[in-house]
Amino acid sequence: MAAAAPPPPPSPAPEAPNDVPRGSTPRGHPLFARIRLALPTDVPHIHKLIHQMAVFERLTDQCIATEASLSSTLFTSPPFQSFTIFVLEASHTPFVEHLQYNNPAYPPITKVVNLDLPINDPDRDLFRSNGGVLGGDACVAGFVLFFPNYSTFLAKPGFYIEDLFVRECYRRKGLGKMLLSAVAKQAVKMGYGRVEWVVLDWNVNAIRFYEEMGAKILQEWRICRLTGDALNAYVNA
Amino acid sequence: MAAAAPPPPPSPAPEAPNDVPRGSTPRGHPLFARIRLALPTDVPHIHKLIHQMAVFERLTDQCIATEASLSSTLFTSPPFQSFTIFVLEASHTPFVEHLQYNNPAYPPITKVVNLDLPINDPDRDLFRSNGGVLGGDACVAGFVLFFPNYSTFLAKPGFYIEDLFVRECYRRKGLGKMLLSAVAKQAVKMGYGRVEWVVLDWNVNAIRFYEEMGAKILQEWRICRLTGDALNAYVNA
Repeated sequence: MAAAAPPPPPSPAPEAPNDVPRGSTPRGHPLFARIRLALPTDVPHIHKLIHQMAVFERLTDQCIATEASLSSTLFTSPPFQSFTIFVLEASHTPFVEHLQYNNPAYPPITKVVNLDLPINDPDRDLFRSNGGVLGGDACVAGFVLFFPNYSTFLAKPGFYIEDLFVRECYRRKGLGKMLLSAVAKQAVKMGYGRVEWVVLDWNVNAIRFYEEMGAKILQEWRICRLTGDALNAYVNA
Repeated sequence: MAAAAPPPPPSPAPEAPNDVPRGSTPRGHPLFARIRLALPTDVPHIHKLIHQMAVFERLTDQCIATEASLSSTLFTSPPFQSFTIFVLEASHTPFVEHLQYNNPAYPPITKVVNLDLPINDPDRDLFRSNGGVLGGDACVAGFVLFFPNYSTFLAKPGFYIEDLFVRECYRRKGLGKMLLSAVAKQAVKMGYGRVEWVVLDWNVNAIRFYEEMGAKILQEWRICRLTGDALNAYVNA
């Protein structure tokens, strides 16, 4: 297990000016956010996000993923049945619907965040998304990777979130919350019993954020990991 | 996630008497142990084992699994692709091969443990296995439930062990080690990168056992869990 990268605590959403009726086009600097199922063509961006996450966690020595190894191990089953990735895209202009994203298993969800200042994304070109290629302004701002787990006590599946990551310039805008909520909502929709992930015990900001999201932090449990040579020693067990 | 029930520390295997050539039939009280893929017909036994585990962990209030809810959520995919159960059987007489257990995905593995004293199993009739129904003496002594997880850093799947449980009268005979080794060996066989599970931090016997098995205990990570009303609140997220 790698880390569920701690999303930053969300800042309170700025209130709409009094003279703007509810539901109208936001003023200021609207940021259009979209969550959709990842496609194999997203792998180069996902790979870069995983690398940025490893840098954030100071665990680059453990990160040996390549685009090829990701491509050969992901997208092997229908969404939600095994490893599943939601990509978070951001754009300064509204998203245009593209057929390739209209997966009936998970129609994309969108949200508009009204910002005081426009986002200065130094890596915009690096993360320009398929939506961008098709004419839009969208780029990939983050992702969440999750898969089913199982509780024998509940006799129900759940979801385990392996990674949740938002690029630095998109943090503190509620986008981490949007990603986590999307997984939680999908779990409820499927009748699942739990959503779980892990957090570093010293990451108090992340812990506070998760508790605000309704999560309980289990203090007594420790993760046990068998890997590398210690695992390979079992080849003839 | 429920607990990976801590298996007891294995006692050292008794040495064979000097006058018994290696590979010969063990003397004393041989216990024949077999690990095989669970079948839907094992659900009544698995349900009882889960309940015993909840008692052991003093978490019976959290255990609401029924035979029906287990049956409707398990065995939904081929072995190892999703939730997978190995059943541990024990017998005083050698196992007879049965066609129903000859799953090419995982031929059963057997082992003979030489005991000083015969096992007094007060629940033998309750746990008599399908093998027993077919004429043998076998009963179900434990189980392990596991499923694939994924490491983005390794870009590889692994296995997560949700539960590992051996009934009390079969503990301290190396059977927990046999179950854990079987999962580890399968992971190596499939080219997987990790096997992971959790342990309660006060369970020093289990921690010592896992470390002897080659596992590292990750001290810094905490599990976050969203469940019940807090999860269901996301229905309209």
